[in-house]
Amino acid sequence: MKIALAQINCHIGNFELNCSKIIDNIKRAEKDNADLVIFPELSVPGYPPLDLLEYDYFIEQCYKSIDKIAASCKNVAAIIGSPAYNEKQKGKKLHNSAFFLSEGKVKKVFHKGLLPNYDVFDEYRYFEPAGSFSTINYNDHNIAVTICEDLWSLDEKTLYVASPMEELLKQNPTLLINIAASPFSYNQHLERKSILSKNAFKYDMPLIYVNHTGAHTDLIFDGGSMVIDPKGKIVHEMKYFGEDYYLTGIETIKKAGGKKVPSTQASSEKIKLIHDALILGIRDYFRKTGFTKAVLGLSGGVDSAVVLVLAAKALGNENVKALMMPSRFSSKHSVDDAVKLAKTMKISYDIVPINKIYDTFCKTLQPLFEKTGFGLTEENLQARARAMLLMAYSNEYGNVLLNASNKSESAVGYTTIYGDMCGGLSVLGDVYKTEVYELAGYINRTGRVIPANTINKPPSAELRPGQKDTDSLPDYELLDKILYNHIELQMSPGDIVKKGFKPDIVQKTVSMVKKSEHKRFQAPPVLRVSPKAFGTGRRMPVVAKQPL
Amino acid sequence: MKIALAQINCHIGNFELNCSKIIDNIKRAEKDNADLVIFPELSVPGYPPLDLLEYDYFIEQCYKSIDKIAASCKNVAAIIGSPAYNEKQKGKKLHNSAFFLSEGKVKKVFHKGLLPNYDVFDEYRYFEPAGSFSTINYNDHNIAVTICEDLWSLDEKTLYVASPMEELLKQNPTLLINIAASPFSYNQHLERKSILSKNAFKYDMPLIYVNHTGAHTDLIFDGGSMVIDPKGKIVHEMKYFGEDYYLTGIETIKKAGGKKVPSTQASSEKIKLIHDALILGIRDYFRKTGFTKAVLGLSGGVDSAVVLVLAAKALGNENVKALMMPSRFSSKHSVDDAVKLAKTMKISYDIVPINKIYDTFCKTLQPLFEKTGFGLTEENLQARARAMLLMAYSNEYGNVLLNASNKSESAVGYTTIYGDMCGGLSVLGDVYKTEVYELAGYINRTGRVIPANTINKPPSAELRPGQKDTDSLPDYELLDKILYNHIELQMSPGDIVKKGFKPDIVQKTVSMVKKSEHKRFQAPPVLRVSPKAFGTGRRMPVVAKQPL
Repeated sequence: MKIALAQINCHIGNFELNCSKIIDNIKRAEKDNADLVIFPELSVPGYPPLDLLEYDYFIEQCYKSIDKIAASCKNVAAIIGSPAYNEKQKGKKLHNSAFFLSEGKVKKVFHKGLLPNYDVFDEYRYFEPAGSFSTINYNDHNIAVTICEDLWSLDEKTLYVASPMEELLKQNPTLLINIAASPFSYNQHLERKSILSKNAFKYDMPLIYVNHTGAHTDLIFDGGSMVIDPKGKIVHEMKYFGEDYYLTGIETIKKAGGKKVPSTQASSEKIKLIHDALILGIRDYFRKTGFTKAVLGLSGGVDSAVVLVLAAKALGNENVKALMMPSRFSSKHSVDDAVKLAKTMKISYDIVPINKIYDTFCKTLQPLFEKTGFGLTEENLQARARAMLLMAYSNEYGNVLLNASNKSESAVGYTTIYGDMCGGLSVLGDVYKTEVYELAGYINRTGRVIPANTINKPPSAELRPGQKDTDSLPDYELLDKILYNHIELQMSPGDIVKKGFKPDIVQKTVSMVKKSEHKRFQAPPVLRVSPKAFGTGRRMPVVAKQPL
Repeated sequence: MKIALAQINCHIGNFELNCSKIIDNIKRAEKDNADLVIFPELSVPGYPPLDLLEYDYFIEQCYKSIDKIAASCKNVAAIIGSPAYNEKQKGKKLHNSAFFLSEGKVKKVFHKGLLPNYDVFDEYRYFEPAGSFSTINYNDHNIAVTICEDLWSLDEKTLYVASPMEELLKQNPTLLINIAASPFSYNQHLERKSILSKNAFKYDMPLIYVNHTGAHTDLIFDGGSMVIDPKGKIVHEMKYFGEDYYLTGIETIKKAGGKKVPSTQASSEKIKLIHDALILGIRDYFRKTGFTKAVLGLSGGVDSAVVLVLAAKALGNENVKALMMPSRFSSKHSVDDAVKLAKTMKISYDIVPINKIYDTFCKTLQPLFEKTGFGLTEENLQARARAMLLMAYSNEYGNVLLNASNKSESAVGYTTIYGDMCGGLSVLGDVYKTEVYELAGYINRTGRVIPANTINKPPSAELRPGQKDTDSLPDYELLDKILYNHIELQMSPGDIVKKGFKPDIVQKTVSMVKKSEHKRFQAPPVLRVSPKAFGTGRRMPVVAKQPL
């Protein structure tokens, strides 16, 4: 049996585009004499459709698309992800399903049994889990069709009480298919390979896995669809961060000696993966919202420098505009470093000093303020004046403002809300400062792009004379480790101290994270690259008193 | 058997406060010779604790609190809501549970069977549903202890496959207890009474229902705990929007002839309830984040006028500051109307014209802009200059900025992001413009507080000469109806047109809702008063192409 894997980039709610991509791949598979072509989970509506699933006319569009796609499945069968109505009286309205299309119609519908409902996932919000499982006989193969999380309950201790594969085994399947919407984080591909390989090995069957590629707001789907032999070895791995098509055969899979599956350790490729993911994240945000041009403030610091380069790679340098907005606290080298980078990258820029705006604000506010001193108010005024200029540029020319806050400063609230927190998309909001430096190094790997001074000077917001980030924060090397323990590993301050960190620094850091929940509540969507990003994957009460 | 109902206002994560409230009520019940005192769902950690539940040290604090509370239950038993570890290998880590405390220790733990996971609820994110159900014998009564949603599966067609009560019935309970965290919306109390009454009637048992009161960021818990007799009649209804304590007896309940339960129709009290809910929402946001003072921009329009009055009622007029920030497009009466209101309410105010700031921005931007005309950019500059002044005031004096955007303008994006969308809390973000007028009428019911001109003049953002809201939007009477059909009732544009609305206006409105998802993504938390508020209860993809 010949099988085609179609790793496509869908657009949520864009049924016309999604259908045409699906049908194009069906035609190609047909031309290749394939017997079956497989598409990712919920590829008809795009993933994740979120509350659009609650609108009946959205579901009707899904069914109409399925009919249209089925009509093109005359000479080749297809497996497509789309929601299906729950036909029982009780339970949620929908299932998350895989449609088996053949001979011009829907032959069978499989429902997902294990619904992820943690971190960025809310599938239990919309879907009823499958109550029963069955295989389909096709071309002398007895196929077990599963959907993403369905294969994620191998261990003794799992999140799920049920196990779809244990049910399916009773029907003696000979081929295991998994359609998925598994978003990127820097170690997800290793987890994925390990779990899928274990499934193929345990059930002694070839496994075909088809994942999405493309980004939807905060979530980036990296692709990496694969074919695994019954010994658990990866026979073929598809492209990362791009669409791909692959033709294989059951006999070929069984005969092939696959690659060894890497262990689930931190990958040495981490920074390269983050780099590629962020570019896809930016590109698809623009493409899918219909915008083409970006604007950002270029401070001379490393964060905005990295965002500028990533944006230029994603959108083309001609579509990126930089504004340098020095105040009287900006050092001379800041504008010079920023200009140098803009010139290297062939980015159009303007220098717009903010002194007059800042002075006018101060003068206007003078009658209200009792003091004459300089403080947080005045620091924030500068950050907000810059945001106003950037947003004015955005309004005038239609460039989307890119946010350049990193995860470290966002975590501790070392940011100005409605100031440097502004933007349509946060590019580095899930990248710690130490990782931003690594990204800068990676960008410079084949030659100097980001100026040495931008990378080497001590980080500073330059909002008051001689300011350094370390005036308010621990060194980033230390800060990022504490944050990682508290945010990614969800450790208590007490346990972090036990790992050898100083109690006062740990307490202060965790307390700053808690005190800035209200700021992050209003942050732009953050491109997710870690297993625990700020945004929809981390939901903290704003009014809570967090026990320390 | 004498039973006390303790309707308390908890603070998420404030174990010290929650424990002391709980123990105080236990002591009071003890003094009253009660046999049992009942507290709301998850009252130990406060509701909803969200991802704090994922931190083990948070759960440990819950257990420590339970021990402390149990120790005080020497002469009276108590039922308390708190999370419990799932003791099985498989499934989520926690249960949402009710602890039965007696004789100084935990006698039994009941787990919630039906976990709401829709709208603002994410309980399946954290909890494993109960697999089995059993009653407890206490003082010659066989008590069925249920948790909130557990009683919400009466109908033929429900969201849930299981029915805890059908399981519990097998053990012949004689008393039904339900502890809840049921947030306010303007018709929720009617739904609640209807469902609880049906349960008591169906199972022919007295029903005791204990709900939270108090607000947590966006969610307002209205209380309204109650006692229902076996005929389904309400014997006693507790306070709305405040803490309350009530002592009753099983015999008393059985004998009493209760009130008739109102039908689930729109309540004539709707506006009064919204008014009271918003005041509690504001008060608790401040109290629970540790702030005391608010600031807001007073434009002379009805939205900011209503917010000012509500804030003064919630925080005290001495804790509210108003800034009037006229531009050259502001009409004379706007400042006059605003000043009149501030004087009536005895609110401290300042008039801070923004012309100089606006002119400085325009001059600074001139070299960048090719045109000389006036447009959206310039309109937004004014709104953002005001936000900067308000935030500067907030930074300087510690007053939290209150947002005054209403649901209608938020829905269609007739707002400036980082401008009038700023604020720590959105007071009217779930109140349609037509309802804002009703609120103004309600506030003026016993005498003129909000000036007549503020209420009677045509709504205008005053961002360009002679501007009216109706230049860009349909009349609010019409707009609000279309929005209600699309947002609350989740109707398609086609179905709304079938109800008699003009196709072009419906299309334009729904398209505006879709196009402003990216703005609402960054909006402040919205006090929820309707069944479908913007915020955590409505999750829409930013990049989607919504089918029209």
